[in-house]
Amino acid sequence: MKVALIGLGSVGRGVAGMIAKKDLGITITGIADSRSGLIDGGGVDIPALLARKKEGGFCGDQTISSADIVKKADYDALIEVTPTDALSGEPATGYIRSAISRKKHVVTSNKGPISLFLNELRMAARKNGVALRYEATVAGAIPIMHTLEDGLAGNEILALYGVLNGTCNFILTRMAAEGLTYEQALMEAREMGYAEADPTYDVQGIDAAIKLVILANTIWGNGVKLDGVDRTGIDLLTADALRLAEDEGCTIRLIAEAIPRKKILRVSPRIIGKNHPLVVDGTLNALTLETDMAREITLIGRGAGSVETASAIIGDLLYIRDRYVQRA
Amino acid sequence: MKVALIGLGSVGRGVAGMIAKKDLGITITGIADSRSGLIDGGGVDIPALLARKKEGGFCGDQTISSADIVKKADYDALIEVTPTDALSGEPATGYIRSAISRKKHVVTSNKGPISLFLNELRMAARKNGVALRYEATVAGAIPIMHTLEDGLAGNEILALYGVLNGTCNFILTRMAAEGLTYEQALMEAREMGYAEADPTYDVQGIDAAIKLVILANTIWGNGVKLDGVDRTGIDLLTADALRLAEDEGCTIRLIAEAIPRKKILRVSPRIIGKNHPLVVDGTLNALTLETDMAREITLIGRGAGSVETASAIIGDLLYIRDRYVQRA
Repeated sequence: MKVALIGLGSVGRGVAGMIAKKDLGITITGIADSRSGLIDGGGVDIPALLARKKEGGFCGDQTISSADIVKKADYDALIEVTPTDALSGEPATGYIRSAISRKKHVVTSNKGPISLFLNELRMAARKNGVALRYEATVAGAIPIMHTLEDGLAGNEILALYGVLNGTCNFILTRMAAEGLTYEQALMEAREMGYAEADPTYDVQGIDAAIKLVILANTIWGNGVKLDGVDRTGIDLLTADALRLAEDEGCTIRLIAEAIPRKKILRVSPRIIGKNHPLVVDGTLNALTLETDMAREITLIGRGAGSVETASAIIGDLLYIRDRYVQRA
Repeated sequence: MKVALIGLGSVGRGVAGMIAKKDLGITITGIADSRSGLIDGGGVDIPALLARKKEGGFCGDQTISSADIVKKADYDALIEVTPTDALSGEPATGYIRSAISRKKHVVTSNKGPISLFLNELRMAARKNGVALRYEATVAGAIPIMHTLEDGLAGNEILALYGVLNGTCNFILTRMAAEGLTYEQALMEAREMGYAEADPTYDVQGIDAAIKLVILANTIWGNGVKLDGVDRTGIDLLTADALRLAEDEGCTIRLIAEAIPRKKILRVSPRIIGKNHPLVVDGTLNALTLETDMAREITLIGRGAGSVETASAIIGDLLYIRDRYVQRA
């Protein structure tokens, strides 16, 4: 199977490295970072390219853009892992539309296009007979989309509850464990590299809400949007609130919930029993699916990281390889 | 897709009920309990049959046996859910061999044949171009086999750790929570219907070890057997031991572990941090997979129950329907 890889940040480098390392029957025939691109029908030399990137060099030719690769390279599946723009979804959405219109499969980790345009992109993919896979958009290495699709096939999903933002979970874990204030815990998260200089996107629950939108639309196809999520962040939580919860054998976590029967679509800090499966520590992510047959199934794993996210992308690529490309 | 269902205990009735209730494109053309059988190429009337069974009546004709159904009925997939005989694997193994030799797919919840003869049955299935699925043999509703196969595709599984016996987990949870002795907690488990009159199979770790054998052979194909599992039960655990663990912020769980790089294949009570994802309460099951890319992924869910186990079986049936029968 031939793939084109657009985006060479942490996730893109992780994916490229794993494709080079593992014998998956996958060849990268086109690759681009934000400044340059490279097309090689015989297969890009990944180790050499990663070494070049590490030294601050260009990925390829500055006259070849990401859009050129998407439009012109010979590949079966596009791997789109450029940075997320949650408002416009660009330039990722353009790349994805363009690949689908060329009847190429698409695998993306990009929350922008999927949270904004899932229904449109899904329909276009179906019309063109190709797969659109986005396991990596939600909860990093946790194979939530595969579980919804295959593992729990035949089940009706009645509700979902998730800890979908590692930054918030780290801050809350530290506040509870050490009695820190929100500001102290945020400072620590920044020092550890878990929080951005501007943490708004994480601590106000926007990131978790975007993931909730993706999950809800995937499961129920109900066309919900970010502004339909009832959202409260963790930035106003006091150390006292956490202490009171702990006194009762509980703790506080930022929980994303979708419960269609109650018309609930919400991200908010919730008091939750310490033994509840969703109470995970540090930057872990967790998801509970409430179903009609399997009842509650909880999945826990790493929500971020280069190789962890590569795991989700490679799972999607193998799905396409085994169900589409090998049969063609 | 046409299926034959052998076994009408709690699991069999759960499966039949769900096939009748849900629109899955599955028709039961043959069905048998331990005393009688029924063949109906047009589709067995499931609600009528379940009502008959509820009143203590026969499933069908006493002159038609399970073996007759397996050998003569017209079906695409056999659903084998008779009681487990962990020593001989019979009569289930005979039914499964017979169905595979007729080029029929097989779905089973039976730990006997799968823990004893997985490699042989797998090879026979491959030779005959049919699927052998057994999601329900380990951890009830948790889609562990699907996760290994699809969700974590491309990952190398380095080790696994599991809480695979709900009876033991219930007893340990109650000992820790209420300071009960093993005998008191066992009594409570019996009253709740979670423990058999003779609890040996559960409390001495045999059931967990059998599941560990199934998982290890599935993942690494290394032909391990039950007598290769280093096994210690929970029946000699004292309330003091649990109290000491709790004093250190830990607890004790019966953990099944397979770590090939250390040559460990073991079921034993382990001291484990209370915040560890594997520490689940009551009769829940939990499994952690250690992988090279996704790192640790934990799955938590119900390890038993009629409808919960039906979820696993129906997941397997839909796998076969979508990948084999619909394409044929």
